[in-house]
Amino acid sequence: MERTSEAYEKALKARTASVKLASTDAATRNAALLAMADALIAQTPRIIAANGEDMARAKANSMKESLQDRLLLTPERIVGIADALRQLASANDVIGEILEGRTLDSGLRMTRVRVPLGVVAMIYEARPNVTADAAGLCIKTANACILRGGSAANSTNIVMTKVLMDAAASAGIPANAIQSIETTDRSATTELMGLHGLVDVLIPRGGASLIKSCVENSKVPVIETGTGNCHTYFHASGDLEMGLEILLNAKLSRPGVCNACESLLIDEAIADEALSAALKALAGANVLIHGDGRSAEAAAALGLTEGQFVPATEEDWGTEYLAYEISVKVVSGLDEAIAHINEYGTQHSEAIIASDYDAIRRFTDEVDAAAVYANASTRFTDGGEFGYGAEIGISTQKLHARGPMGLAALTTSKFILMGEGQVR
Amino acid sequence: MERTSEAYEKALKARTASVKLASTDAATRNAALLAMADALIAQTPRIIAANGEDMARAKANSMKESLQDRLLLTPERIVGIADALRQLASANDVIGEILEGRTLDSGLRMTRVRVPLGVVAMIYEARPNVTADAAGLCIKTANACILRGGSAANSTNIVMTKVLMDAAASAGIPANAIQSIETTDRSATTELMGLHGLVDVLIPRGGASLIKSCVENSKVPVIETGTGNCHTYFHASGDLEMGLEILLNAKLSRPGVCNACESLLIDEAIADEALSAALKALAGANVLIHGDGRSAEAAAALGLTEGQFVPATEEDWGTEYLAYEISVKVVSGLDEAIAHINEYGTQHSEAIIASDYDAIRRFTDEVDAAAVYANASTRFTDGGEFGYGAEIGISTQKLHARGPMGLAALTTSKFILMGEGQVR
Repeated sequence: MERTSEAYEKALKARTASVKLASTDAATRNAALLAMADALIAQTPRIIAANGEDMARAKANSMKESLQDRLLLTPERIVGIADALRQLASANDVIGEILEGRTLDSGLRMTRVRVPLGVVAMIYEARPNVTADAAGLCIKTANACILRGGSAANSTNIVMTKVLMDAAASAGIPANAIQSIETTDRSATTELMGLHGLVDVLIPRGGASLIKSCVENSKVPVIETGTGNCHTYFHASGDLEMGLEILLNAKLSRPGVCNACESLLIDEAIADEALSAALKALAGANVLIHGDGRSAEAAAALGLTEGQFVPATEEDWGTEYLAYEISVKVVSGLDEAIAHINEYGTQHSEAIIASDYDAIRRFTDEVDAAAVYANASTRFTDGGEFGYGAEIGISTQKLHARGPMGLAALTTSKFILMGEGQVR
Repeated sequence: MERTSEAYEKALKARTASVKLASTDAATRNAALLAMADALIAQTPRIIAANGEDMARAKANSMKESLQDRLLLTPERIVGIADALRQLASANDVIGEILEGRTLDSGLRMTRVRVPLGVVAMIYEARPNVTADAAGLCIKTANACILRGGSAANSTNIVMTKVLMDAAASAGIPANAIQSIETTDRSATTELMGLHGLVDVLIPRGGASLIKSCVENSKVPVIETGTGNCHTYFHASGDLEMGLEILLNAKLSRPGVCNACESLLIDEAIADEALSAALKALAGANVLIHGDGRSAEAAAALGLTEGQFVPATEEDWGTEYLAYEISVKVVSGLDEAIAHINEYGTQHSEAIIASDYDAIRRFTDEVDAAAVYANASTRFTDGGEFGYGAEIGISTQKLHARGPMGLAALTTSKFILMGEGQVR
């Protein structure tokens, strides 16, 4: 571990800040969130100017239009970001909640209290809104944070972090509670991952390769988020029309998000009709189909071209396209469908279209995923849809938090025991 | 990752077993636990014979007496192990519990259900009782398990695992749900740590070096357990007599356990009297004192010898002795005590002896540990004392579980959403 690195020094400062931050009351933290919102509005010209530098670099580097759009800040967007902070200020506080308590046989008064994690590191892409969002979530939950945004947004992030930290400090939040890594050197990410003992949790919010790198290399505990190789499975008992509607919604409503459908499984018993209908609908919506042998026959019968259908490779079953593409496979039945999903899925969101009670029961029991659906689109896996308000991301791991994460995912608990001389 | 290793092949089988195991009902799992207990009793001669091989090897290798005692099985001890399994059978079931549920705005019926983690790997020392204990905890919570016990207990573990698995299978538990690593090759541990995606959690139960190695090298999520550099802090406002009683209990009642006191901090304001009394009591109980400069003066005044007092080094502040040794330091007051504990502690259990309300409040708020005590011995941090019954270990990390872990620590949750064609 590089003991003189920016990541190390900032983590050390964040750790110190986190001790005092943990003892702040909710009123102080909520006032800080409102001050942060006000400051973003008041400092809009300064933030837009910094964002302009990032945008100029992005254009010079011929950044993709969609990524440029994600990077761009406008006064309207800053109003939206500030509003999100204000909403957070009015959300229920989770810190200090007594999760359980009793008088032990020894006479000790025991309470288990919800407390902040301490220092949270977030690594994310060039999306300036995440900077304010992550800082806000951490202040709400009394965590210090170290933010590592995509380098393409670096000028914006530096200015926004300063604006947010100054505003929070003016409301009584300890200095250094909100920090961002300013170097664009990639080694800073590696350093962050090595800071076991200083950083309590690392939350990568981004693509599959970033998350994989964190899982494999981090000594700091990681919350895996967001990769979703989600399946829609047409069981023989399902309503085909409903299935097609759900499939198209899950694939097309927002192909670039993690809860979008990436793979279609169809029972052999209904393959003739269902495969033909599904391929026709998908191709009609300009979705490139990666299909198995049986699908190839159906595609040929439909007269699909090479731009519409290609044979699936082994790799396709495990691919999250995040695009107008899908893999399609015919399975012998429920057992094969469940086994296929458990082998190739990413334990995010999985759906069965069926009317058979036992099939739905077995699918929801045996498919190993954060969210399993019967007769609905996987697109519903979302903190807002599930009623959690503020969302930190969607956890695809099993420890600590699974599925859409609310504020409680940024907390842990502590036993407090009040005695009067008890010995054991 | 060695794709043909014993660890990989067993993990693959455990994964397959875990899918069916997750759908078993509590009655089946409890019947299996009783069958496992009966089988241990019925197969006592076979288990004792295997244990005899391990004991003979241990003696030939001049294993320490205390470790030999830990390794030894007797018919009486096997009765105790079987009784623990029977108690587990009668404990409340946690699987299938509905943790929350509501009808979403979309009309989806959402429930969040407690489900098994899937495949749990445990790495532990040469303690055959842990083999039955770990297998029992996993069957109770519908998890498949891969057990990796200390090589000195290998013959015992192989036989016990077979006896337990056969008995569980006879009661309806899927084959391969309970497995142990049979090779004594150390690389098997490394392989287990690499099986991200096959193994859901790795729980090391053992010494600090084992745990450190898992945290640093494992790609599988780890639950850190058991290292405890616990402090007892005499605040200026504390009752000295009570403090000494608590200190001696925390240090002496079982020095080899993780909740034993390893370091004493004393406020400067009371150092003259408290230091002298504490050093005298500790030395009188044959505890080797590693003290700071101020302690050295007190030790000299008391006439302590080199076998009773040595100057503390920087390393001492971070050392878990697990022996009749302690570090002693005079601090300027509450701030330094909290800062020292947060720097050198292992976030396990920490105690303040005080009568001042604000000092106790600040200590319990600002000390970052799983359990913080006012006026009681740190020795109470224990699943049994806290009322959790079966204990998996004491987590010293913040994610997923913190402090003594009960059965719920071996579970995760899954969202199940029942729809009728909902799209977003």
